Amino acid sequence: MDGFLARLFPVLRSITGPGVRETLRLIQDELADDARLNVYAVPSGTQVLDWTVPDEWYLTDAFIKDASGERVVDVQANNLHVLNYSAPVHARMTGEDLLPHLHALPEHPEWIPYRTSYYKKTWGFCVTQTQKEHLDAKQTYEVMIDSRLEPGVLNYADVVLPGQTHEEIFFSTHICHPSMANDNLSGVALMTYLIKALAKQDRYYTYRFAFVPGTIGAITYLAQHEQDLNIKHGLVITGVGDSGALHYKQSRQQNAIIDQTAQYVLEQRSKPYKLLPWEPYGYDERQYCSPGFNLPVGRLSRTPYAQYPEYHTSADNLDFISSAAIQEALEFCLELTQTLEANGVFLNTSPKGEPQLGRRGLYDDLGGSNDAKTLQLALLWVLNLSDGEHSLLHIAQQSGIAFKHIAKAQRLLLERNLLVKVT
Amino acid sequence: MDGFLARLFPVLRSITGPGVRETLRLIQDELADDARLNVYAVPSGTQVLDWTVPDEWYLTDAFIKDASGERVVDVQANNLHVLNYSAPVHARMTGEDLLPHLHALPEHPEWIPYRTSYYKKTWGFCVTQTQKEHLDAKQTYEVMIDSRLEPGVLNYADVVLPGQTHEEIFFSTHICHPSMANDNLSGVALMTYLIKALAKQDRYYTYRFAFVPGTIGAITYLAQHEQDLNIKHGLVITGVGDSGALHYKQSRQQNAIIDQTAQYVLEQRSKPYKLLPWEPYGYDERQYCSPGFNLPVGRLSRTPYAQYPEYHTSADNLDFISSAAIQEALEFCLELTQTLEANGVFLNTSPKGEPQLGRRGLYDDLGGSNDAKTLQLALLWVLNLSDGEHSLLHIAQQSGIAFKHIAKAQRLLLERNLLVKVT
Amino acid sequence: MDGFLARLFPVLRSITGPGVRETLRLIQDELADDARLNVYAVPSGTQVLDWTVPDEWYLTDAFIKDASGERVVDVQANNLHVLNYSAPVHARMTGEDLLPHLHALPEHPEWIPYRTSYYKKTWGFCVTQTQKEHLDAKQTYEVMIDSRLEPGVLNYADVVLPGQTHEEIFFSTHICHPSMANDNLSGVALMTYLIKALAKQDRYYTYRFAFVPGTIGAITYLAQHEQDLNIKHGLVITGVGDSGALHYKQSRQQNAIIDQTAQYVLEQRSKPYKLLPWEPYGYDERQYCSPGFNLPVGRLSRTPYAQYPEYHTSADNLDFISSAAIQEALEFCLELTQTLEANGVFLNTSPKGEPQLGRRGLYDDLGGSNDAKTLQLALLWVLNLSDGEHSLLHIAQQSGIAFKHIAKAQRLLLERNLLVKVT
Repeated sequence: MDGFLARLFPVLRSITGPGVRETLRLIQDELADDARLNVYAVPSGTQVLDWTVPDEWYLTDAFIKDASGERVVDVQANNLHVLNYSAPVHARMTGEDLLPHLHALPEHPEWIPYRTSYYKKTWGFCVTQTQKEHLDAKQTYEVMIDSRLEPGVLNYADVVLPGQTHEEIFFSTHICHPSMANDNLSGVALMTYLIKALAKQDRYYTYRFAFVPGTIGAITYLAQHEQDLNIKHGLVITGVGDSGALHYKQSRQQNAIIDQTAQYVLEQRSKPYKLLPWEPYGYDERQYCSPGFNLPVGRLSRTPYAQYPEYHTSADNLDFISSAAIQEALEFCLELTQTLEANGVFLNTSPKGEPQLGRRGLYDDLGGSNDAKTLQLALLWVLNLSDGEHSLLHIAQQSGIAFKHIAKAQRLLLERNLLVKVT
Repeated sequence: MDGFLARLFPVLRSITGPGVRETLRLIQDELADDARLNVYAVPSGTQVLDWTVPDEWYLTDAFIKDASGERVVDVQANNLHVLNYSAPVHARMTGEDLLPHLHALPEHPEWIPYRTSYYKKTWGFCVTQTQKEHLDAKQTYEVMIDSRLEPGVLNYADVVLPGQTHEEIFFSTHICHPSMANDNLSGVALMTYLIKALAKQDRYYTYRFAFVPGTIGAITYLAQHEQDLNIKHGLVITGVGDSGALHYKQSRQQNAIIDQTAQYVLEQRSKPYKLLPWEPYGYDERQYCSPGFNLPVGRLSRTPYAQYPEYHTSADNLDFISSAAIQEALEFCLELTQTLEANGVFLNTSPKGEPQLGRRGLYDDLGGSNDAKTLQLALLWVLNLSDGEHSLLHIAQQSGIAFKHIAKAQRLLLERNLLVKVT
Repeated sequence: MDGFLARLFPVLRSITGPGVRETLRLIQDELADDARLNVYAVPSGTQVLDWTVPDEWYLTDAFIKDASGERVVDVQANNLHVLNYSAPVHARMTGEDLLPHLHALPEHPEWIPYRTSYYKKTWGFCVTQTQKEHLDAKQTYEVMIDSRLEPGVLNYADVVLPGQTHEEIFFSTHICHPSMANDNLSGVALMTYLIKALAKQDRYYTYRFAFVPGTIGAITYLAQHEQDLNIKHGLVITGVGDSGALHYKQSRQQNAIIDQTAQYVLEQRSKPYKLLPWEPYGYDERQYCSPGFNLPVGRLSRTPYAQYPEYHTSADNLDFISSAAIQEALEFCLELTQTLEANGVFLNTSPKGEPQLGRRGLYDDLGGSNDAKTLQLALLWVLNLSDGEHSLLHIAQQSGIAFKHIAKAQRLLLERNLLVKVT
């Protein structure tokens, strides 16, 4: 995974343009034969829900040269130096006139901020505070942003892994941020490796994974695929590489099965975690959970965006994250999908009185000692609450018996035709 | 307001009779041209719900004279001296025989209690404990209550301020207590000035204000106006002039919009307050919230009745209350009505994905910095939860954003046709 | 009651056989003329729900003799010595070979455990640890269990006390345990005396009392009487003779009226108690609360089974229990039935405004003093909430007024036709 991250990091991404395509190519390389990435291209100007697909952005070079011809700011040194989606400019101007086009972070004088201007045509540079302060107000500088904004396409991609049912578990991550590691490469890496793992498993659910530019990509995905979607449970993944605890943000539904299950799996782990209530701000869950879709889509991250100083700066680099942190978040995702797969609602086929478990080999022969074993209790709980209304997850929660025992009891009872599956 | 209170104070009120009419005349004078008070007269003997309108009570004089002819108890000195609604009496009797007809407060020897006997024909005097103790058991006194109980009318009044909708916000206060300031002149004063304030405002709701004798007046009001009422939110106002914190008593519905809104407005103020659960005892909310009407009518007071020693005694005088306290309760009522007016349920007209706020001038151009402003968050919350099921008040509560920002966001979105009003 | 317990104690009971019949005979004797016990006999092999009625078990003698011919283990000394429902055996074997057939309690070396083998044909002895350790591995013992397992009948019994309505309050206790006092003679004694008490009372409900062998008896009862049952409230009684606090285990419905009422009655008593959540393990509530029946049946005990060391051992003898403890649990049952009988949902016949209580003799004549009495408040609460949806128990809980005052208010209002009964 470290090599994958290292290959992804230097690509200059934006919401459109060659950086997105290069990123998708690297993902397909990493997936190798495990899964096929479907890459889509939607022409600029296409209406997508309330939005319009914007022009494609190409950047060839960007710099500020001082009077001596030295590049004092140079996009070759760091992709973040150019205001993302910047309009072109080539001019000579004094430091004083240049100043309004510079974005810096006074509180972190050596970090470069990440700024964008997708929907207002302007140009600018993101610089360290030190660079900004070294600028001479009276000196004349050569300012060059060699960019083009032209009709082209918006790219995104998905992977679909079919299961026994057409009902889907959905994952989404954004792929539009240039040269920042936690936001968003950690999400890209987790999702790529999650696909590789799930591709090798038996699947009850169909799995859908979307790699989309933030906001406009999610909107385009919804607009283009609305008829295909059959999402029962979903998760936006992002910012999972830092050292913070796992944070699950609930869906707009607040108590969807994904919300209950994510909370349950987090509770069962012996590690710190935090649950965040729904709010209509954040990442692409904003789109999936808009009221016209209201999909059961939560969000998994570690430290939430904007709550760590490195957020959206050059300090969010490969040193800031670890593949171990991503790996652990991936393991949580696998536990989550396993729990969703095993969960279900069943009907006791012998609901009047307890069925005689003893003659089916499911009960101790010797009575009186009352050291009821966990599995025996799990059998009774599953029988008692399988009335077509209670899920196994509910039974685990009401009984206090770990889900794995409840699921095992369900399998044993299903084998003996004492249960039938409802949903 | 002080002058108004001073004019109201000396009037000898009861549930019927000239005192009620004089009180209503003073209210109309104070309303001046701001609003018209509709005064009603219902004949004695009229059936009103389960009750019958009682006879009208007139009192000319009432006193106890000692052997020397001196008035040792004199209604001219204080209206409370006569048992309210007392039957007439003119007799000579010993102090010993007089004693069962005297009501006093041993624990407050200089205060006169307020007592009534509306539904049992009897006579009596309310006196200070000191007066009672000065009475000579052997001496003969002249006892005179020059009252009449005769068929007449019961009077009450209302004001209706029309709004854009026929749905009503209802206020009610009682007007039957003689010469006590907190109970009930503070309510009369607040409601009179509330009418004056609301009369000058644009109104979405129609406002209905009832000035009624306690219990029988509220019952008569309900009996006579049942077909006219269209009450969406209501409040009984009383006892708002003392120095205690505001107390809101919830309606029988317990979670009506008025209950939620009153609680919200109280929470948002930086002052102490208390919420009281519904109980079927108290003031005229007893009638409005009887199960056959079950109107969403709460109650606003300061220190609840019977929880301050001055309650229903001569110590509840103009010195016990302040117009500042009444004024502050009035301001709460105006905040409450403004919140009720601004509240509503809306539908997002662009519910699939977020609408593009940037091109509508509602979103920052420069991305990446994530210092989402309150209004911007409010816009997203209103869009996200305006699915025809969540009120603005709910959105304020779920988001933790102050109602005024939520309401402003709603106005901006309505102007851009991103919302339509549902209710 | 002590005599009754002493007569019941020595009987060698099992799920079938003469011990059950003798137990039922002793119960009928104790009931005397107060009530008639209906005794049922269901042939072995009869299908009952998912189960089959097993063979009848007869035991004549059981012992282990050492080489000298001395009975070192003898069922005549204690009924628990034989594995309950043991298959016959007569053999000579070494101590070593005998060992796997012996059950003992190392942690309580002088106690005999109670063990059963109903559904696997095997033989065994239950012995003290001391007896077990005295066994000589090399010596030869004569082992005799003179039992028969033959087609016969399963017996159980019930008592039905008719009431004004066919709706039933149901009680059940198990009668299959040999020579243990708390589990299960305390339940048998309580239920027998409860029948005697209720037989002498006016009854709104019909009462049904089932005396059944554990598990198979309850299953048989449900199978045989399903069409007769009209259970509105039910309680399994067991283990009520020890010194622990009363424990109420809620029904599978969790918030049935019996659950609410039992909790309320326990709260109103000034004694410690504990509420246990539903679980599908325990006594015959497992059957009554199976999902195909889902009857509102809770369970009353003192210290729950398996939570006291004497449980299912010879130490659960008559010294371990007291008739005072059983008596107190019986009093709780009577309070519970009285509350269930008095409870109900009523409709206020004068729901618009308060009815005029004064002219019906239900309200103080003299107004103003506001020392509202409990009964007066209870009258207002009952009138206010009797809208066909709130039970008297709910009204007691919401008002905080003790149920007895609420019930008295209901009776006064019913007499004056201000209420009608709904359910």
